[in-house]
Amino acid sequence: MSITLDSPLDMHLHLRDENMLSTVAPLSAKTFSGAIIMPNLVPPISTKDELLAYKSRILEATKGHTFKPYMTLFFKPTYTKEFLESVRDELTAIKLYPAGITTNSEGGVAGFDVEELRPTLTAMSELDIPLCVHGETNGFVMDREAEFVSIYEMLATNFPKLKIIMEHITTKESVEALDKFENLYATITLHHLLITLDDVAGGMLQPHLFCKPIAKRPQDREALRRVAFKAHPKVMFGSDSAPHPQHAKESCGCAAGVFTAPIAIQVLTELFTQYSTIENLQAFLSGNAQNIYSNIEIPKKTIVLEKEAFLVPNKYGDVVPIYAGETIKYSIIERKEI
Amino acid sequence: MSITLDSPLDMHLHLRDENMLSTVAPLSAKTFSGAIIMPNLVPPISTKDELLAYKSRILEATKGHTFKPYMTLFFKPTYTKEFLESVRDELTAIKLYPAGITTNSEGGVAGFDVEELRPTLTAMSELDIPLCVHGETNGFVMDREAEFVSIYEMLATNFPKLKIIMEHITTKESVEALDKFENLYATITLHHLLITLDDVAGGMLQPHLFCKPIAKRPQDREALRRVAFKAHPKVMFGSDSAPHPQHAKESCGCAAGVFTAPIAIQVLTELFTQYSTIENLQAFLSGNAQNIYSNIEIPKKTIVLEKEAFLVPNKYGDVVPIYAGETIKYSIIERKEI
Repeated sequence: MSITLDSPLDMHLHLRDENMLSTVAPLSAKTFSGAIIMPNLVPPISTKDELLAYKSRILEATKGHTFKPYMTLFFKPTYTKEFLESVRDELTAIKLYPAGITTNSEGGVAGFDVEELRPTLTAMSELDIPLCVHGETNGFVMDREAEFVSIYEMLATNFPKLKIIMEHITTKESVEALDKFENLYATITLHHLLITLDDVAGGMLQPHLFCKPIAKRPQDREALRRVAFKAHPKVMFGSDSAPHPQHAKESCGCAAGVFTAPIAIQVLTELFTQYSTIENLQAFLSGNAQNIYSNIEIPKKTIVLEKEAFLVPNKYGDVVPIYAGETIKYSIIERKEI
Repeated sequence: MSITLDSPLDMHLHLRDENMLSTVAPLSAKTFSGAIIMPNLVPPISTKDELLAYKSRILEATKGHTFKPYMTLFFKPTYTKEFLESVRDELTAIKLYPAGITTNSEGGVAGFDVEELRPTLTAMSELDIPLCVHGETNGFVMDREAEFVSIYEMLATNFPKLKIIMEHITTKESVEALDKFENLYATITLHHLLITLDDVAGGMLQPHLFCKPIAKRPQDREALRRVAFKAHPKVMFGSDSAPHPQHAKESCGCAAGVFTAPIAIQVLTELFTQYSTIENLQAFLSGNAQNIYSNIEIPKKTIVLEKEAFLVPNKYGDVVPIYAGETIKYSIIERKEI
C-alpha cells in the first residue's frame, strides 16, 4: 500500500543563511510545496529589502524545486500601516518573539503593552496579515508557555480580526486556548508529537532533542496528539526544524533546536499510521494551513510514501538530524512536481 | 575575617576507580576529613573483599592526607545477617539504588517488595547499619523523587529502627517527609542548593549541570535552602560530586553528574555567608553527620577560608568542574591536618 500526500506545507521553518541555507533549504524544498520562513537571522528581517533579498537567496538555494518560501518579517511595534501596505504582497505573516526568548530573538518585544502594540496589530488586522507568535514568558522553563496563554488571550480579545498563530505549541493549556478564541490557531512540530522532557533529560542528556519551547509532560504530548491526529481545523504542521552545526549542539552550552525537515513527512506518516489516523494527515500537513492562511499560493507537488525502511543519515552537511543513524519505517518513493 | 571549619565531611561522594580515582580522590582528601564513598563501580561493590580492595585503592590515592573513606556496599536483598556481621567493622552504610535509575545502577532493586527486603533491612536495623537511598521512581523525570516519597514512608514505617538517608534530595516533598518520620534523614548537595532546571535547560543546555536527580523548581530549591541554611539536625552535606571525562559530558548522550568536590567548601561558605547563616555551616558540613552517623571515626582537620577571589580551573585532569573558568569569592587559605 502506498500513501499519497498532496502539496505538503511546513508552516514554521528555519532556513538560516549562507552555507547553512544551501545545506538545508533543498532538503525542505524536495518534499514540501512551501514553508513559512522564520525571520530571525542576525540581524532579523525587518525591511522590504531584507525580505526580498532573503527570498532571492532562498529561491537560489532551492533552484530546481517547486517550492514557495512564504516570507515573514520580525515583528516590531514600530511598523506603520503604510510600511505594511508597501510590503503586503511579499509578506505572508509577521513573527513576534518576546525579547531574548530563543535563538536570535534579542530584538523582540519586551513586555506586552497592548497600547504600544495596537497601531501595528490593528494595521495587520486590516491588511489580513497573520501574527505568528513564539509564546513563552521568561518564567520557569516548564511553565513559560502555560504562563503565556494569558497574553494570547489578551491579544485575541483586543484584536479579534487578527489571525494569531500560536507557534510550536507544547502544552495542554495552549491546546485548550485554541477553542476559546475564534482567532487563535496553532502549529505543532513533529518532535513535540514524539518526545517529552523524559526523552531530553530523563536518561542521558540528549542535546539533539533540546529545543525551545522545551518538550513537556506526557499529558501535554497527549493533548497535542489529540488535536493533531484528528487534524483539528485550527492546527497545522510547522516543523520548527532548526539546524545548528554539530559542535553547537554537542558542547558546553548547547543551542536550542531539533533538525527534522528531511524526514518529517516520513515520520508523520509512521505516527499517523500507528495511531490509525492516516486519513487526517493530508489536512494536518496541508489542508488546514490552506484554510487558515487563506490567500497563499500553493505549488502542486505529490509525495508518495511506502512502508519501506529508511536509514536516517548521521548528518546532513554538519547538521545531525533527529533519528540520526536509526531506521525509520516509511520512505518517500516518488515525488511529482508540476 | 577568616572562617574556620573543623573536620568537614562529605556524606555522599563518587570517587570512581583507576585513573579517575587518582585524579579526584586527592581533591576531596585535601579539604574533607572523610566521605561516604558510593559503591556503584562496575561491577558494584558487594563483597567484603571488593570493599577492602576498593578501600585500599582509595587510601593509596589519598596518601599524604588525613582522610577517612567511609565505605559502603551496593544494596542487595540477598545480604544475610551473617554476611553483614562479617563486614560490619569495615562498613559505614549500604546504598540502595532502584534498578537502572542512574549511573551504574543496573543491578539495583526492581520493585519494592517489603517482604523481599525484610530480612536484609531487619539485619541492618539490628546491626545499626544506615541505609542510603537514591530515591527516584522510573516515572516522569520531574516527578520521580516526589513519587518515591511513598516508598520512603513504607521503609520508614516497616523498619522504624533503621536509619534511612534520603540521598541528594531535590524536592519540597522530600523535605516535608523529613519531619514526618523519626528515622528519615537526608543529604543535600551543593548544586541543588544553587541551581534549578532553568540553569540546566532554561537558556542554552548546560551538560555540566545535568545530574540525577535533575534540578527541580525554584520552590524546591527554596525548601532545600530552608533546611540546609538552618542546619536542620536531620540534614547533612553530601556533595554527590560525580566526575565524568569531558567527552562524556559534552556529547550526544551526556552522562549525569556535577563535579563539585574541589570547590564545594568554598562555595558553601559563600552561599551561607550570602544568606547570613554562616554560623550554621559547621553543623551542616560536619556536626549533623557526626550525630546521624553516630559511630564513625572522624579525623581532625581544620580548614580556614577568607574572602579572596579564586579562579576555578577549566579542568581537573579531564573533568570539568562546576564554575569552570569562573571566579568564586572564597579561598581556602590554610589547612591543618593532625
